[in-house]
Amino acid sequence: MSEQGKYDTTDVVAYMNRLGHEARAASVVMRRVDSGIKNRALQTMARLIDERRDALIEANGEDLVRARANDLSDAMVDRLALTTPRIDAMIEGLEQVTALPDPVGEVDGLRYRPSGIQVGHMRVPLGVIGIIFESRPNVTIEAASLCLKSGNACILRGGSEAAASNRALGEIISEALIMAGLPATAVQVVATTDRAAVGQLITMSEFVDVIIPRGGKSLIARISRDARVPVIKHLDGICHVYIDATADLDMAVNIAENAKTHRYGTCNTMETLLIDAPVAAEVLPRIAERLAAHDVEMRGCERTCALLPQAVTASAEDWDTEYLAPILAIRIVDGIEAAMAHIERHSSGHTEAIITENYSLARRFMAEVDSSSVMVNASTRFADGFEYGLGAEIGISTDKLHARGPVGLEGLTTRKYVVFGEGHIRQ
Amino acid sequence: MSEQGKYDTTDVVAYMNRLGHEARAASVVMRRVDSGIKNRALQTMARLIDERRDALIEANGEDLVRARANDLSDAMVDRLALTTPRIDAMIEGLEQVTALPDPVGEVDGLRYRPSGIQVGHMRVPLGVIGIIFESRPNVTIEAASLCLKSGNACILRGGSEAAASNRALGEIISEALIMAGLPATAVQVVATTDRAAVGQLITMSEFVDVIIPRGGKSLIARISRDARVPVIKHLDGICHVYIDATADLDMAVNIAENAKTHRYGTCNTMETLLIDAPVAAEVLPRIAERLAAHDVEMRGCERTCALLPQAVTASAEDWDTEYLAPILAIRIVDGIEAAMAHIERHSSGHTEAIITENYSLARRFMAEVDSSSVMVNASTRFADGFEYGLGAEIGISTDKLHARGPVGLEGLTTRKYVVFGEGHIRQ
Repeated sequence: MSEQGKYDTTDVVAYMNRLGHEARAASVVMRRVDSGIKNRALQTMARLIDERRDALIEANGEDLVRARANDLSDAMVDRLALTTPRIDAMIEGLEQVTALPDPVGEVDGLRYRPSGIQVGHMRVPLGVIGIIFESRPNVTIEAASLCLKSGNACILRGGSEAAASNRALGEIISEALIMAGLPATAVQVVATTDRAAVGQLITMSEFVDVIIPRGGKSLIARISRDARVPVIKHLDGICHVYIDATADLDMAVNIAENAKTHRYGTCNTMETLLIDAPVAAEVLPRIAERLAAHDVEMRGCERTCALLPQAVTASAEDWDTEYLAPILAIRIVDGIEAAMAHIERHSSGHTEAIITENYSLARRFMAEVDSSSVMVNASTRFADGFEYGLGAEIGISTDKLHARGPVGLEGLTTRKYVVFGEGHIRQ
Repeated sequence: MSEQGKYDTTDVVAYMNRLGHEARAASVVMRRVDSGIKNRALQTMARLIDERRDALIEANGEDLVRARANDLSDAMVDRLALTTPRIDAMIEGLEQVTALPDPVGEVDGLRYRPSGIQVGHMRVPLGVIGIIFESRPNVTIEAASLCLKSGNACILRGGSEAAASNRALGEIISEALIMAGLPATAVQVVATTDRAAVGQLITMSEFVDVIIPRGGKSLIARISRDARVPVIKHLDGICHVYIDATADLDMAVNIAENAKTHRYGTCNTMETLLIDAPVAAEVLPRIAERLAAHDVEMRGCERTCALLPQAVTASAEDWDTEYLAPILAIRIVDGIEAAMAHIERHSSGHTEAIITENYSLARRFMAEVDSSSVMVNASTRFADGFEYGLGAEIGISTDKLHARGPVGLEGLTTRKYVVFGEGHIRQ
């Protein structure tokens, strides 16, 4: 019998408290586990996934049948499907996390103080992490591997539409943990699709240290509103590119095209382009030509529409919209002050870029724009854990506290003070 | 007319929203203010406080008269009083904060990635900080100076019993800000004693980035429960010292005495002493003798009481009590596992120390004890921002996220990613 199914789920609150209690106990063990053992568990997961491809695809098939019976959209069914390339990607992801350096126990800043004590910081796991996500079953493996590597216990609550897939993956994770000599309860997959489970997970602060929701904006907003446990969250990605009058215009055209068209559905995609008035007449038609080749709809301010007959007039709402689609809002502004004022008002705090050759303006933009990533002469599409060298990413935080921007292993840890003395007492 | 009194306070929600709106606008300005200008404002505050001692003592006198009329306890009246030494300490505190390095704008970890972009972290202000505190008016200056130095705007809500003192200090702060060319709204003292102001402050997440409550446990618990803005908080300090069998017993006796008796009312004072059974008979009577000289009441487990006839029997509640008084709970345990299990169950996550000469046990204790400060062979009384070299302290966080342990200027900042490219686009 699998570890994941061993508790009665009829009383959801009692069931979730049970998971919480087990996770807390497992987290105490996980704090002191060697890197080697954690890596062995990750490698075993990869091996078991590889060996049980057929069983996984079969379990996923149940989910797909139910999804089609429930008239889920093609896009949702597609996200739900476990295909051979997706299973390959899961295995590769596990290998990547195995290869990452273990952040736990790293000590820095150890310095002697005038009193004679030596004080530093040690990086340690957060404890218990609750992760709530929607249909994509590969998130189960991704989240489990990052929590495990960072020495945390976790409780994973996937979407009900992926229940059979997640159950099968949960069994593999449990087996791998046990084979590595770790508590199976270090990673627990919630075995009920009752929505009350989420309500309990996000409020049982005695058992859970942080909640990471991954999914649509409404899911995240609801969880943030109701949680009594700290949430690492990411709502919108309304990213801006500002082309300053001194910009290298070839560079500006390339970056604007890349930031908008490289992928439409990602949170680091540019949604609004701001152009300094003196170069608008020269650069806008060139950008419009590139965007037209990708069938991107342009919604502009009045001045933009005057220069681009093909643009439609943007409404006030456009400046606050994350399109996640081949649509771009464009506004002509008078200088960096106006650009930064627009960003201050409309940005979601995710990622903004300036294209400029002016040293002072580049410095101002970097210092003053209050977003999780601020860039000079680069595409907003680089705002990503892999591109930043984190090795893996559990999400992108647009919060200011704790983790900001792409969240990797470090974001799943905290630091405590360590003090070494030789009998020191306070005078 | 002073800046602090310029808005109508009859509609508390509208008034607080107004303060929030002004603070948010000021925070945009504060982000880019030079260290020199911030220091000038701090020095001007110090000068104005020095020049207006009489006026401050007079304003404080109003509060003291009202406090006595309202039958406040002597302890509360004492905390409220602005005496000459306390005014000197305020001025000295301002000088210390002026001398601290400015954390804002510090960039670290700037490295090239395989794509060619260069990625690093820049330290930036949090934005708007709301601080809620009880009677001590010196907190007004302390909090204002730390928020100002770290480039944040702040809204300060002191206790109603210190209303006149805080108003007078608020006027000095406003004047100093204006004289340095900064917005007076960068530091706003809430001008109403209506409790609804707190309710609004902790829920207006569009204007406030973080709340720091300073005061009694019930105040902090209430704020944590009701806040919709992240809270940096510190509830109890139930600190433990564990004397291992290999400890240098002279050292153990000195540290136990210091950790308990150096000051009783502080959160880093030892509340429970754990002693490894093999050395209990030898070390306990020596510690008891020292504590008896300070009139410390000892409450022990059964084994402790068998060794110390003067000890009273501890109840289950004692292990979870922050005495803040000359009382110590004592328990004899069998080895480090039992000691760490006791700490895991009863600690508030503030500070724990082990006294040992055993290398492996010291390493285990440091790695496995999950508190904001973990020490070897040093008194828990060292857990303090000044002792740790932070230069100043806005509080001690027993939370795990963001700031943990003593919180100084760094805890009032966050880090954003900065990316430098030369026209890089994502492939």
